[in-house]
Amino acid sequence: MSKNNRVWRLQERPVGNITNNTLSLEKENIPQPKDGECLFQLNYLSLDPTNRIWMSDETQYMPPVVLGEPMRGVVCGTVLESMTPDFKKGDIVSGIGTWSDYQIGSPESVGLLSQVDNVSAMDAFATLALVGPSAYFCLLDIGEPKAGETVVVSTAAGAVGSIAGQIAKIKGCRVVGLTGSDEKCRWIKEELGFDAAINYKTANLPDALSKSCPNGIDIYFDNVGGTILDECLKLMNLHGRIPTCGLISQYNALEPVPGPYNYSLILMHRLKIQGFIILDYLERFPEANESILKWMSEGKIKVRLDVSEGLETALDGVKKLYTGENNGKLMVRVKEI
Amino acid sequence: MSKNNRVWRLQERPVGNITNNTLSLEKENIPQPKDGECLFQLNYLSLDPTNRIWMSDETQYMPPVVLGEPMRGVVCGTVLESMTPDFKKGDIVSGIGTWSDYQIGSPESVGLLSQVDNVSAMDAFATLALVGPSAYFCLLDIGEPKAGETVVVSTAAGAVGSIAGQIAKIKGCRVVGLTGSDEKCRWIKEELGFDAAINYKTANLPDALSKSCPNGIDIYFDNVGGTILDECLKLMNLHGRIPTCGLISQYNALEPVPGPYNYSLILMHRLKIQGFIILDYLERFPEANESILKWMSEGKIKVRLDVSEGLETALDGVKKLYTGENNGKLMVRVKEI
Repeated sequence: MSKNNRVWRLQERPVGNITNNTLSLEKENIPQPKDGECLFQLNYLSLDPTNRIWMSDETQYMPPVVLGEPMRGVVCGTVLESMTPDFKKGDIVSGIGTWSDYQIGSPESVGLLSQVDNVSAMDAFATLALVGPSAYFCLLDIGEPKAGETVVVSTAAGAVGSIAGQIAKIKGCRVVGLTGSDEKCRWIKEELGFDAAINYKTANLPDALSKSCPNGIDIYFDNVGGTILDECLKLMNLHGRIPTCGLISQYNALEPVPGPYNYSLILMHRLKIQGFIILDYLERFPEANESILKWMSEGKIKVRLDVSEGLETALDGVKKLYTGENNGKLMVRVKEI
Repeated sequence: MSKNNRVWRLQERPVGNITNNTLSLEKENIPQPKDGECLFQLNYLSLDPTNRIWMSDETQYMPPVVLGEPMRGVVCGTVLESMTPDFKKGDIVSGIGTWSDYQIGSPESVGLLSQVDNVSAMDAFATLALVGPSAYFCLLDIGEPKAGETVVVSTAAGAVGSIAGQIAKIKGCRVVGLTGSDEKCRWIKEELGFDAAINYKTANLPDALSKSCPNGIDIYFDNVGGTILDECLKLMNLHGRIPTCGLISQYNALEPVPGPYNYSLILMHRLKIQGFIILDYLERFPEANESILKWMSEGKIKVRLDVSEGLETALDGVKKLYTGENNGKLMVRVKEI
C-alpha cells in the first residue's frame, strides 16, 4: 500500500515551549481496521491546551503520549470502512484520536457527532467535542451559579472561557471576562454579552477587578492559575467557588510554581477550589450537548473559530495557544465535510 | 464597686510571635448585665489557634479584636445574675466571651453546656465548645469519609486533630496522624487507636507518608498548610478531599507565604480543597455534640487536656500553641466548678 497517510509523532517532550522538534510529520501507510473498529478520514482536528499536558510526562489525568507514538488529539472524521455495527460508512464521528489523515476508531474512542440544521458540522464539533461540555459541567456542577451572582472567567475569549461566560449569562449572573487584547474584550462584551471585560495585559488588575466586581466575586472560573488566581482570591465572597478547569500559566513552567499567596483566604472565606477534568463526565455528554446545541441554534451561545488549513499546520497552530495569538477556538481543517 | 475583675486587653497586634506586650492584664470593675443579658463568672478558658487570628487585623472570619478591648475567647462560666429567661443563676454556660473573671453573656453569645454523667464539665466544655464540632463537621461534611479510605490528619495530637482522627476511625477509615514528638505519636497510636503516626520533625516526610499510606490519601484533614500540605498533595488519590480547618504554619508569618507548589495536582487529580470555619455550623452544634458526648461516654473519643491554673497564665499558655509545647487541648482553669 502506498504511503498516503500523514502522522504527527511525538519526538521530544517539550521543556518549556513546544518547538519544531517536539513533533515530526511522517508519511505512513493507511491502517486497517480490525473487528470492532472503523477506519475514518480526519476532517477537523481540535487544538487544545491539554495537548501540551499530553506531550509532557508530568503527573496527569491520562497516560502521556509515548515518545515516538502518534500525537493524541480531539478529532472529527468521516467513516470510510466499518467493522463495528456502531458506525457505518459516511458517518461523522468525533472523539479522541490522533493527528493523522487516516486513523482507527472504536465505540470506546469516538461517537457520532450531534448535529442540528442551523449549526455547521465544524461549529458543532468544535463546541461539543470537548470545550462545550467542559464549560458546562465545570461551571454548573462545581461552580453552582445562582442568578445575581458575579462570575469572573479567565481566558474569557478562549474556547472554554467564552462558553462558560455565556452559560453564566444564561443562568442570570453578572459575568466579567479577562482576556489579553482589546479586540477580544470588545468581542466578549459586545458580541457575547459579558457585563465587563478586562484586558489583563494592560489593565491594573486589582483596580480593574474591584471596579468590575462591586459586589465581590462568587465564582472564579479558573483556566490559568498564577497571578490572576491570586488577585481573584482577594475579592472572593464568603463561600465562593473556584472551579479549576485549567492552569495554563503553569504548563510551560521550567521551575516549581508556587501556589497562590492568598491561599489562607480559602480558610478565612470558606472557599471551595475543585479541579475539573472532562474525562469524569463522558457519560453525561448527551445532557450537556443537548443544552449547548439548543443554545447555539437559538443564538445564545456563539463560537468563533480560528481555523488553519491543512494537517501540516497543526504544530504551528498549537504553539499559538501559549502566545495568545489565536483568535477563537483553534482548529485545523484537514478535509472539509 | 471595687476592682475585683481581671481583664486581658489587646495592646498590640502581634508581628510574628505573640509577646508579653501583646496583651495586658487589667484590674477593673465587675460589669452589670442589662435586660436580655446575664453576668457569669469564668470557670474555664479555652486557648485555641484562632486566638492568634483574632489578635491580628488580617482579613478573617470575624471582626478582629479592637486594640484596647478585652481579648475574645471561648469560655465556660457559671451564671451569677440573669436578666434573660434563657438562663438562671447557677447555670453552666459556654460560648464566645472574653478573657476576664466576670463578664456579660447573652443567648446570642453563650448557651447551656451539654453534660452527661461520666464526662467532667471541663472535658465536656473543652470538647464541645469548639474543637469537637469543628472536627465533626469539617471531617464529615467536607471530607465525606467512606469506610476503607485513608485519612491523614495534621496536628493529630492537637485538640481538633485528635478528635477528627478518632471520628475517622469510628467511620471505618485508615487514619494516619502527623505530630511533633515521639510521645505524641505514641499517644495517638496506642491510646487513640490511629493506624500510624509520623513525627514530622524527625521523619523523612515523603518516605514516611508513602509508607503509611500504601493506597494513597483520600482525605487530608489540613490544620497547618505549608510543607505538609505540599507533601500530602503528592499522594492524594483521584477525587480526594482536603478539608481545610486551619493553616497554623502561616499565622505567625512575616512575609507573604506561597501556596502549595503542587497546586496543579488539584486539577490533575480533581481534588476538592474547601475552607472550614465553625461559625457556619453554629445552628447544627446540637447534632455534633449529641454524637460526640455519646462517643466520649462510650470511650470511643478520648481527650487530653493541658491545663494551666489561673487567669494570669493565659498569655503564656496561648504562646505554647505555636511552639508545640502543649500536651493536649490547652485550657486555663480560672475557678473549678
